[in-house]
Amino acid sequence: MSFIEKLNKRYAVKKFDDTKKLSAQQLDDLLTAVQLSPSCLGLQQYRILVIEDQATREKLRGAAYNQQQITQASQLIVFAAETNIDDAYGKKYIDRIAETRGIDRANLAQFEQAVLGTINSRNPDDRVIWAQKQAYIALGVLVSAAADMGIDACPMEGFAPEKFDEILGLREKGLTASVIATIGYRAEDDAYSKLVKVRKPKSELFIHI
Amino acid sequence: MSFIEKLNKRYAVKKFDDTKKLSAQQLDDLLTAVQLSPSCLGLQQYRILVIEDQATREKLRGAAYNQQQITQASQLIVFAAETNIDDAYGKKYIDRIAETRGIDRANLAQFEQAVLGTINSRNPDDRVIWAQKQAYIALGVLVSAAADMGIDACPMEGFAPEKFDEILGLREKGLTASVIATIGYRAEDDAYSKLVKVRKPKSELFIHI
Repeated sequence: MSFIEKLNKRYAVKKFDDTKKLSAQQLDDLLTAVQLSPSCLGLQQYRILVIEDQATREKLRGAAYNQQQITQASQLIVFAAETNIDDAYGKKYIDRIAETRGIDRANLAQFEQAVLGTINSRNPDDRVIWAQKQAYIALGVLVSAAADMGIDACPMEGFAPEKFDEILGLREKGLTASVIATIGYRAEDDAYSKLVKVRKPKSELFIHI
Repeated sequence: MSFIEKLNKRYAVKKFDDTKKLSAQQLDDLLTAVQLSPSCLGLQQYRILVIEDQATREKLRGAAYNQQQITQASQLIVFAAETNIDDAYGKKYIDRIAETRGIDRANLAQFEQAVLGTINSRNPDDRVIWAQKQAYIALGVLVSAAADMGIDACPMEGFAPEKFDEILGLREKGLTASVIATIGYRAEDDAYSKLVKVRKPKSELFIHI
């Protein structure tokens, strides 16, 4: 099946088969794909919660319009943006590059200035929005990777971020819940799986110059 | 090659081979993948410019720190968020669902209320940020699809949105440039293609609950 056929087969699952779980290998592969997502300057300004614990999911479901996917799916993924992106965060990233590539940190001085300059060009509120946008790229990669691997997913914005932050203790970790996704396998009787996909026609979506 | 191997092979291209262009079929496949991106409620609150014209790209390059990929790549993609998302926009979307699925519009009344309620729960500024976030999902799908198809890309935030809006006449179309990507094929001598990929280790990126 081509990648496009796989994307056509995917849809936002409204009812998961709660007897079907991802294998440890499938979950690890999916997370590896998400780990490989690009982000501005490579900063990966987010952390990603992978939630299986049912008691936690029950609580979160109450903060997500009681949507059944939260507890029914194999896992709930919460993309949490970093809220304290500062010079220290930028410098730690430069440390990681030097270590990963086995190069002298001094050789990264110019790039370090670019990273710190980019961080400091934004006020704290805008940095959070900036981090959230990077998390949305990762969500796009998650959805794509899941489609490729034959895993179903439902990206979701319908939840109360402040309640998620509270339940998951994210604020004290310098994080805020930004977007979520449930992953697993569609229930055979999910009526939504039969609906024709609705998209803007190419003539209304794309502008060629 | 597995999808993960393909994602590992990709990187943000700094130098494209300007003699290699995407075929019409490759471009169309890539755009089809992007068209299939999920978005909140399916609203696709963005338009996507596909720019080949060199004169336009020369102007845009000046508004993007003179980065050579802008003119060197096969195409420049500009994800432009909708700035006038209102009831009319939401209703037009409901029209499209009814038409695409061949169902009576009256049967969508409840979903229409959800769509209009979601739109009106945000002030105009927040609606633009909301639209931009959806565009970042589409960017994630673009990068994934390109990797799958063996096409190189460089997602880019380093440009002046207000200058792009002016050069491309986006404001009068109710759009604003939000994030861009260049697509094509890496130059053989792009030194960045040889660098080891830097990512947070899984233990620092993921939190398992």
